[in-house]
Amino acid sequence: MNGAESLVHTLLKSGVDTCFSNPGTSEMHFVAALDRVPGMRCVLGLFEGVVTGAADGYARMSGKPAATLLHCGPGLANGLANLHNARRAQTPIVNIVGDQATYHRPNDAPLTADTEGWARGASAWVRTASSSATVGADAAVAVQAARTHPGQIATLILPSDTSWDEGGAIADPVPVPPKPQSDPAQIRNAAEILRRGQPTLIVLGGEAVHAGALENAHRIAAATGARLIAQGANARISRGRGRVPVDRIPYVVDVAVKALAGTRHVILCGLRKPVTFFAYPGSKPTTPIPADADIHVLARTDQDAAAALAQLADELSAPRVAVPDPGPRPEPQRGPLTPDSVAATLSALMPEEAVITDEAVTFGRGFFPFTYTAPPHDWLNSTGGAIGCGPPLATGAAVGAPGRRVIALQADGSAMYTLQALWTQARERLDVTTVLLSNRKYQILLGELANVGANPGRTALDMLDLGNPDLDWTKLANGMGVEAARADSCEGFADLFVQANSRKGPFLIELMI
Amino acid sequence: MNGAESLVHTLLKSGVDTCFSNPGTSEMHFVAALDRVPGMRCVLGLFEGVVTGAADGYARMSGKPAATLLHCGPGLANGLANLHNARRAQTPIVNIVGDQATYHRPNDAPLTADTEGWARGASAWVRTASSSATVGADAAVAVQAARTHPGQIATLILPSDTSWDEGGAIADPVPVPPKPQSDPAQIRNAAEILRRGQPTLIVLGGEAVHAGALENAHRIAAATGARLIAQGANARISRGRGRVPVDRIPYVVDVAVKALAGTRHVILCGLRKPVTFFAYPGSKPTTPIPADADIHVLARTDQDAAAALAQLADELSAPRVAVPDPGPRPEPQRGPLTPDSVAATLSALMPEEAVITDEAVTFGRGFFPFTYTAPPHDWLNSTGGAIGCGPPLATGAAVGAPGRRVIALQADGSAMYTLQALWTQARERLDVTTVLLSNRKYQILLGELANVGANPGRTALDMLDLGNPDLDWTKLANGMGVEAARADSCEGFADLFVQANSRKGPFLIELMI
Repeated sequence: MNGAESLVHTLLKSGVDTCFSNPGTSEMHFVAALDRVPGMRCVLGLFEGVVTGAADGYARMSGKPAATLLHCGPGLANGLANLHNARRAQTPIVNIVGDQATYHRPNDAPLTADTEGWARGASAWVRTASSSATVGADAAVAVQAARTHPGQIATLILPSDTSWDEGGAIADPVPVPPKPQSDPAQIRNAAEILRRGQPTLIVLGGEAVHAGALENAHRIAAATGARLIAQGANARISRGRGRVPVDRIPYVVDVAVKALAGTRHVILCGLRKPVTFFAYPGSKPTTPIPADADIHVLARTDQDAAAALAQLADELSAPRVAVPDPGPRPEPQRGPLTPDSVAATLSALMPEEAVITDEAVTFGRGFFPFTYTAPPHDWLNSTGGAIGCGPPLATGAAVGAPGRRVIALQADGSAMYTLQALWTQARERLDVTTVLLSNRKYQILLGELANVGANPGRTALDMLDLGNPDLDWTKLANGMGVEAARADSCEGFADLFVQANSRKGPFLIELMI
Repeated sequence: MNGAESLVHTLLKSGVDTCFSNPGTSEMHFVAALDRVPGMRCVLGLFEGVVTGAADGYARMSGKPAATLLHCGPGLANGLANLHNARRAQTPIVNIVGDQATYHRPNDAPLTADTEGWARGASAWVRTASSSATVGADAAVAVQAARTHPGQIATLILPSDTSWDEGGAIADPVPVPPKPQSDPAQIRNAAEILRRGQPTLIVLGGEAVHAGALENAHRIAAATGARLIAQGANARISRGRGRVPVDRIPYVVDVAVKALAGTRHVILCGLRKPVTFFAYPGSKPTTPIPADADIHVLARTDQDAAAALAQLADELSAPRVAVPDPGPRPEPQRGPLTPDSVAATLSALMPEEAVITDEAVTFGRGFFPFTYTAPPHDWLNSTGGAIGCGPPLATGAAVGAPGRRVIALQADGSAMYTLQALWTQARERLDVTTVLLSNRKYQILLGELANVGANPGRTALDMLDLGNPDLDWTKLANGMGVEAARADSCEGFADLFVQANSRKGPFLIELMI
């Protein structure tokens, strides 16, 4: 058995049975091993950012890590942006990155690069395999690292001779440490704060926004009068009818500050202290939390946030309470495509148990309030701000949640970074409906330009303009084997949306907003 | 004057007047400064790999660095693969990379990443600006670093407050050190080796493959009987009728070994010792140079290779000799699209002073011999092996060589990594003819799979197959505003090629090979 075979066997034995891949020469033995060792589902991406973003979406839905297979150096580099997003989402991923043979590395061949150096900025765990005899054991530890709560990125670099040499040994899974629990003092402290009855905000992140944890958060809020809010970007939040409704901390600083004003105590559960995405000139704060608010930590990001909420609810003897009725579901809208009309139509027609991937950026910021009445669904945000997470995230989510419809809310500028994901959706016949919000500009940057107080002229506006020429998303989708159509009204959108969601395989709706 | 304005002024004063950009929020003040300070040509790319690859192509043709404008962390990461290629090409580039404000960095906002860490693997020079007062001076040193022979990548990281704060000061250009010359002992040693009359190969890289240097190399070869060969991948090699014909060291190891067999002495001029792209199992060597050959260095990569050839020719009193007639130019071919028929047709119809960007991979490996008889042209290779250099390289070359037709020889799998470059070609109305070699598979990897001795099965073949669904490159090009058409015969190719080259602006020919 060669090293590559021992690696594939070990991954499977450790429960990693899906591999998003974009291989190169140095990975050929791993590819060959995938033939000889049955059981690994391989999904090809035509760009590494597709591969890493899909691994993120897969794990967010399946709850377990996928492997990626990436080419040495620059191949990994192409995947870093979406690994950054995955790192911020606390997504478990096991990257397998090929590299030059151990003895060829010192020759600094043209494709040689500092693979470890590039991996480190996006990984919690990095190791370079040193021989075929130990690569199986390396892989088992990589999976352990990835699965360690709350989920981490592990990168195993695989010099090609550690892959092709004989002497590979399959390793047993390495036990994953249990989730660290909040200290009882953290629970008691939060309870004490809440009992004071002062304006208190419980900010929820990580697993604290999954359905069961939200119910306990709701008990606490109902018993104490505390407000609940989710962090700005969530890896996966349970939403829709029957789920506890929570808003997110708004992206725009002034709006966020207003939303949190008057808060006396902030209790963090499963996240770090919220800060703004960017700093701005002048006196704008870098956190939306009022300067005079006290911050308390119920559960750190590495602690079991869901368990902490359950314990806190019990500590407070908070009774179970029904989730409030969110009111009637909106009707599909007619007329112009506005953020509100699109959101209402989406909510009206979204299928049961949909998975929403959200890289809708400016146009989609207000979609949340409209969808409380939709059927139960999961909502996946871009978590790290790296552009181009949407199409791959949708692709991976569809692989990780078979039988559920994925609805990709997607800004056009962002989609251009990873449009190759559409091809993978077509090849794998994934049930993804992409709602492509085509405004033909970097709208967010026009807002940011105003935020920094700049008065844009021709050159600046040109840098933020995606027109001249306009992108034609139906052609781009068709060119990659995905059927597509345009809508320029809400009724047109509604028709296409219903059709798209009732078919097998992907479809792209270009909304001319 | 704020920091951003001082930066733009300083870049212009240092001779950097073209900026390939894909800005984000943290770069808004730089964008605004581009409005207020006239003179900088800004070219927008819709993905950072387009931006960095275009900067590479631009400098290869114009001989001077462009600036890039990249978004913090993951934005830079998306550009690393083509920076890797540029680094291997010894291309001067000045990257301007935005980042969080100095005082917001410690807050570790979602988009915060190890920008310096990622920059280092692709840059010879990295600095983070610390204040608006010094960012002008930082920029002047960055340009100096980029222009230092043989050309380097300099990355200046720009925390947003160093951009928006007042107090910016324009800096004068910093003198660039002269090109280091070869030591007279290097020249004399090479002459002595050549006078022995033993089988000697002069391997040329860097500026040694530019037209004037090649003429001196030809003098030396004619006077001594030495053979000339270029390194495998060249940033820019002067070719065509009237230029000294030199082949390249072949990519395939066995072919390269055969090509260099029998060599007693190897004289390196403007490159390091050639090594194979990859190692392979078994006894395949990692250099094509015979084990018993002696290696001599006429000019290191940091030395003036062109001057060394001139001095060596004089040292040998080698007379000027005419460039041999390469024979008649081929006729345009008819019938099936084969590597030879496409190459002959290309040579027959290539316009004067064309610029060839070559990411043709397997199909294009044999194009060189057919094009010695074509009109004078420059040929730009992928130098670092990072996939996806072609479309951006063509884009930047067209910006850097106005009035000359760029012909992008482009494999389909590779084109998918950076297809967004087509949009920039359309927007800037660049004279680029893309010859898209559509074989719908990773042909190079099928070869590599055979090379490593693996016998591919269904899973492996699926990982190397770009069919199912087939990519439609005419639709992809049209979707980005580039006109396109298909050819499935040589006569069809010839017709489209002539039409494409005679029009203004870009055109894509999808060759169904």
